[in-house]
Amino acid sequence: MSASFRFEVLQKDTGTGARCGRLHTPHGTVETPVFMPVGTLGTVKAVGQDDLQALGAEVLLGNTYHLMLRPGEDLIRSLGGLHRFMAWPRALLTDSGGFQVFSLAKARKVSDQGVLFQSHLDGSPQLLTPERSIAIQEALGADIIMAFDECPPSTADRAVVEQALVRTTAWLHRCAAAWSRGPNALFGIVQGGLDVGLRRRHVEEVCAVELPGYALGGYSVGEAPERMHASVAQVAPLLPADRPRYLMGVGTPVDLVQAMAAGVDMFDCVLPTRCARNGLLFTSTGRLVIRNAAYARDGGPVDALCSCYVCRTYSRAYLRHLFSTREVLALRLNTLHNLHHYLELMRSARAAIAAQRFAAFAADVVAREGPAGPETDEGLAED
Amino acid sequence: MSASFRFEVLQKDTGTGARCGRLHTPHGTVETPVFMPVGTLGTVKAVGQDDLQALGAEVLLGNTYHLMLRPGEDLIRSLGGLHRFMAWPRALLTDSGGFQVFSLAKARKVSDQGVLFQSHLDGSPQLLTPERSIAIQEALGADIIMAFDECPPSTADRAVVEQALVRTTAWLHRCAAAWSRGPNALFGIVQGGLDVGLRRRHVEEVCAVELPGYALGGYSVGEAPERMHASVAQVAPLLPADRPRYLMGVGTPVDLVQAMAAGVDMFDCVLPTRCARNGLLFTSTGRLVIRNAAYARDGGPVDALCSCYVCRTYSRAYLRHLFSTREVLALRLNTLHNLHHYLELMRSARAAIAAQRFAAFAADVVAREGPAGPETDEGLAED
Repeated sequence: MSASFRFEVLQKDTGTGARCGRLHTPHGTVETPVFMPVGTLGTVKAVGQDDLQALGAEVLLGNTYHLMLRPGEDLIRSLGGLHRFMAWPRALLTDSGGFQVFSLAKARKVSDQGVLFQSHLDGSPQLLTPERSIAIQEALGADIIMAFDECPPSTADRAVVEQALVRTTAWLHRCAAAWSRGPNALFGIVQGGLDVGLRRRHVEEVCAVELPGYALGGYSVGEAPERMHASVAQVAPLLPADRPRYLMGVGTPVDLVQAMAAGVDMFDCVLPTRCARNGLLFTSTGRLVIRNAAYARDGGPVDALCSCYVCRTYSRAYLRHLFSTREVLALRLNTLHNLHHYLELMRSARAAIAAQRFAAFAADVVAREGPAGPETDEGLAED
Repeated sequence: MSASFRFEVLQKDTGTGARCGRLHTPHGTVETPVFMPVGTLGTVKAVGQDDLQALGAEVLLGNTYHLMLRPGEDLIRSLGGLHRFMAWPRALLTDSGGFQVFSLAKARKVSDQGVLFQSHLDGSPQLLTPERSIAIQEALGADIIMAFDECPPSTADRAVVEQALVRTTAWLHRCAAAWSRGPNALFGIVQGGLDVGLRRRHVEEVCAVELPGYALGGYSVGEAPERMHASVAQVAPLLPADRPRYLMGVGTPVDLVQAMAAGVDMFDCVLPTRCARNGLLFTSTGRLVIRNAAYARDGGPVDALCSCYVCRTYSRAYLRHLFSTREVLALRLNTLHNLHHYLELMRSARAAIAAQRFAAFAADVVAREGPAGPETDEGLAED
């Protein structure tokens, strides 16, 4: 494990599997459980790095697939790495590109070597292998980098999923071999769909490789939220308790509290940012569609219980006006609010864990949000 | 004159007609010469009110034509007025809608009564008269409101211009009669194209009406900048020296220093904000097209002499990447930089006036920017 990366569990909730922890990275510490805003192309869409610091974000996610195509990892490395390129002084995590290759690329040919695909931008041929994914991620220089995995569709046959697990394990060994063990902490990824037996077997294979952290991939790809919750509840506790556990691409506030109860420490999802840009706002009493005519003359804040800059400053009527007239500011203000909602949810969750009342906290979130959130889909992993 | 509105001249440059002053408004004082960012629909496109306060903007402009259509002055009044609606605690100025009616509306019929036009949004019929323009502006509640004028095309025959002047004068008297003389200070507008004789005659007619301030309209509508500079140099000094002089819809940095030398105190223009959204950045050494390939690997700031948040934080390479990938953040960062450039230009101009060195300052700006800026046109008055 990298000397500059360390995880410590600080507190455990006795009634659930939830825990508070701290990730020590070369770019500062990260309190867990943590939500990581998605900054696909080196920017969390519609907000600035000043905004993200003010919101209290401690770690952002970047997408290898997108950044290798534009502006390219060589350019970013030559300018000092992704932190410096995007002027983000705190921690960064990059995904491996695997998920995007399987969901975004125009045509792809998967072999044991890797994935040959066409860029969704210009159709240019690109080869992504475990070795190249690690090389790109080390060039970008994120504090946490992810193994290159095969993410089969949620509708795949068991035989296809099993084949993907064999390949993902083989690729994990190649990623670990290619990894320079420098300042970038490599996390392995467990796949296996909703089949707990397959997940259990893959946890053993992945965790046999000693790594600074482990992730669960292949969730929130179209299945009912309850099925995901049930699977994560069984699988997350199988991951090593002394390593951070990262549930990739998830999810709604309800998904997050359910997974935290199972001991998950890290999350990312485009839901708060993408919903914001579509005018869907998260509040303490559920969701709000800001373009609704009901808000045209509503001088109150989006959420009377919210302390964010937007709720302290602007009315629903003003936000509706901005959204209705397609003003650019609508995107930033809506995004600021939704990200604050998510980051505040995590702050409250950590406080609830520390106070040994996480079960009650989670039940309250479920009651306020409703049992299921808006449908998530494959597209949600790329903002 | 409104008791809550007061203008004082603080210093005069002896070498030119430039002067420093202070506008006292119900929403704070404004140091002049001042540049007013244009917030057409109750938002300066792509930046927040937090950004504008941080930039040091002391007064913003709103557009009566746009706001009467969306969200409507009744809605804004019912929510406490435009300041409160957009959460802007400092001064506001609204135009009369005249310019937009003549340049934007789909079809219009001008009579002595006013202008009957179709909304550019939905074709709905609308009537704007001097009385209605004042009523809308008082409903919006800006600190400075403008008389409803007829703005003839720059290519109009002298007879057409003369007819417009007669109507504008008649409408000014109706505006002054309709004006409640409350907290909203009414400014008159002088028209007359590039004909100094017509301008001189209209100055006399307009300034015969005792008002808190006077503006020059109908410039920067397609004429060569040098012709505008020459005309403004002759006309601006004819306006009362103890009232603020406002040159509407102008202009480039060179336009601004030329007009300041003639004694103009107030400016607005969409140039910095619109150029920003198109990737054209103002710098101390001229203009920069951020999408140029030359900046792809340029780790330096947009302007090494600029102290704005963008130049302190981000590289040209990052800004080019954001612009090239059409990221929303590009719009905000480019706008922040260009507005800072303009507001800093005004701060430097005020310092130069106070130090009795405005002529040298103006010559320096002209040398750095080049004699003429990018072409301006009628569209520039609506951002």
